[in-house]
Order: sequence, then structure tokens, then C-alpha cells
Amino acid sequence: MVEKKGFQDYYPDDLSCCYGCGRLIEHGLKIKSFWDGENGEESVCHFKPKPYHLAMPGFVYGGLIASLIDCHGTGTASAAFYRSEGRDIGSEPKLRFVTGSLHVNYLKPTPIDAELELRGKVREVKGRKVIVEVNLIAIGTLCAQGEVVAIKIPESMKPKGT
Amino acid sequence: MVEKKGFQDYYPDDLSCCYGCGRLIEHGLKIKSFWDGENGEESVCHFKPKPYHLAMPGFVYGGLIASLIDCHGTGTASAAFYRSEGRDIGSEPKLRFVTGSLHVNYLKPTPIDAELELRGKVREVKGRKVIVEVNLIAIGTLCAQGEVVAIKIPESMKPKGT
Repeated sequence: MVEKKGFQDYYPDDLSCCYGCGRLIEHGLKIKSFWDGENGEESVCHFKPKPYHLAMPGFVYGGLIASLIDCHGTGTASAAFYRSEGRDIGSEPKLRFVTGSLHVNYLKPTPIDAELELRGKVREVKGRKVIVEVNLIAIGTLCAQGEVVAIKIPESMKPKGT
Repeated sequence: MVEKKGFQDYYPDDLSCCYGCGRLIEHGLKIKSFWDGENGEESVCHFKPKPYHLAMPGFVYGGLIASLIDCHGTGTASAAFYRSEGRDIGSEPKLRFVTGSLHVNYLKPTPIDAELELRGKVREVKGRKVIVEVNLIAIGTLCAQGEVVAIKIPESMKPKGT
């Protein structure tokens, strides 16, 4: 069975070492994001926390939630940008976004033993910027809401030769 | 030599398993925060990222920065709350704060090979809430600015018997 490719699988190799979403980093979280919904109007990512991703017994720590929202947000931003240009995801020139700002509201304690679902909605694609809203849901409950302002990677952050 | 105790060392044992700052979790980040400045008007935390905490070659990933700001913010909140009550840190009843909201502006790429300094300023202590602003500095450069709204842990999140 061929595994379905996520947005992050189309990042250039030398920009695929992110601890949160890089496919080439051994011990990272390796999150994968996909379009979802009838018309692909939302992006989705599923993640099962490890037992040590705790804040306190039973609940996920805020930093993991922020990391998931961040990487799902920047992944969604890249896919949305390809779409806004009418291009196939992964076509040249390849896109990679970084985080300009991140906001997270922690609404309910997030259970450690549940699969988490992140659902992203693209609010704006303008210039080098994409704004994505992300809901984090566990066992049918909205546990956190986030907003990511993602920026097309500046030349200064690209490895030489990219 | 006795190691200096950080704010997080005064958390109750059964609330000390946070991946970001719990002293009792083996593989966590184990950050420690302290009062600093002439009159202890700021809190400080130093952290050396691991080589795999990457966003892309050379730079720290946003999720780690969010995690550090989050745990330094909630740690500072607990210390500020003791202070606002005129109590010694760690005196009974022990305090623990959770994150209500987190905002991070990523201003500059954060180098992976530098020691990071987080400096917190308490903006408000009111009711169950403490607001902390956090600057993240690397090699003299302000790389990120954050705000943490921390809330005294609700009874529903405490382990039974705490």
C-alpha cells in the first residue's frame, strides 16, 4: 500500500528537517496534513500524542498543541499558496512557509490518550502571507483554537543552493 | 554544589511531569526559571536547544520557542502569584498555573547553536489570572516576543488527592 502524501511531503529535501513536520528528521513529530471536505475547503491532520507529551497527568502540554497548530498551519499555507497560483502542489518552484505569528487559545484540557484532529481553514492569501485558523478537536470536543500567520520563507533562511 | 532551585522545582510532585518543565519527567525539556534583575522585576530562563530542534538548517523550530515561552510564562505566573500574596515560593497551598492563551511573534530566525535567554515581565495579577510577557533573545538579538495568559489550575485538572 502506498501511503498518501501529505503537504509536508512536497517540501524540498533541504527544508524537510523540521522537528514538527520534517519527513527527514528521525525523531520528530512528522505530522502530515491533507485537504479535506467535499471541496477540499479544510485541511486536516491527525496526531496521537506520546505518553510523555504531558502537561499534568492525563492532559497534553501546551507546547505540543502549539507545535501541531504551527506546523499544520504552515503546511496548509504552502498548499493554499500553490492552489492560489493554480499550480499542483510540489510543482516548481517549491513552496515553504515559516511562522510570522502564532496564537493559541486553550479552551479545554486536551486528553493525552486520544487521537487529536486539527482542522485548518485558510482565511487569507495575500502577497507573501497566508493566514490559517486551526481548531484542535479530541473526542468530539474543541480543545484549542489557533491562528497562524505564515510567511513565504525569506531568502536569508534558505540553505545555500536551494 | 547545590543547584539553585527554579520556580518549577516548587511545583507539587504530582504536577511536575510537564514535558516542557517537569522536574520528574525523564526526557522533557526541564526548563528552570528564576527571578532576575536588581529588584527581581524580571524572570529569566536559559535553554540550549538540541541539534534536532530544527525548523530548517541552522534555525530553531517555532514549536520549541512556543513551548519555552509557555512554560517560562506559567512558571513566572506561579512565582508572581506567591509574591502577590506575600508568601514564600513553595509555601502551602502550592500553586500551579496552566495556559489560557499563548501568543508568539517570530521576529527573527532563532539560531540552533546558541543558548537562548527568555526574559519575563509580569503585566497583571488579577483573580485567578496572571499575564506575562516574554522576550526570547539569542546572541544579543530579540528573536521572538510572547504573551502568556496563565490561569490557576482548575480543580478538574488536578490529579485526585492533590
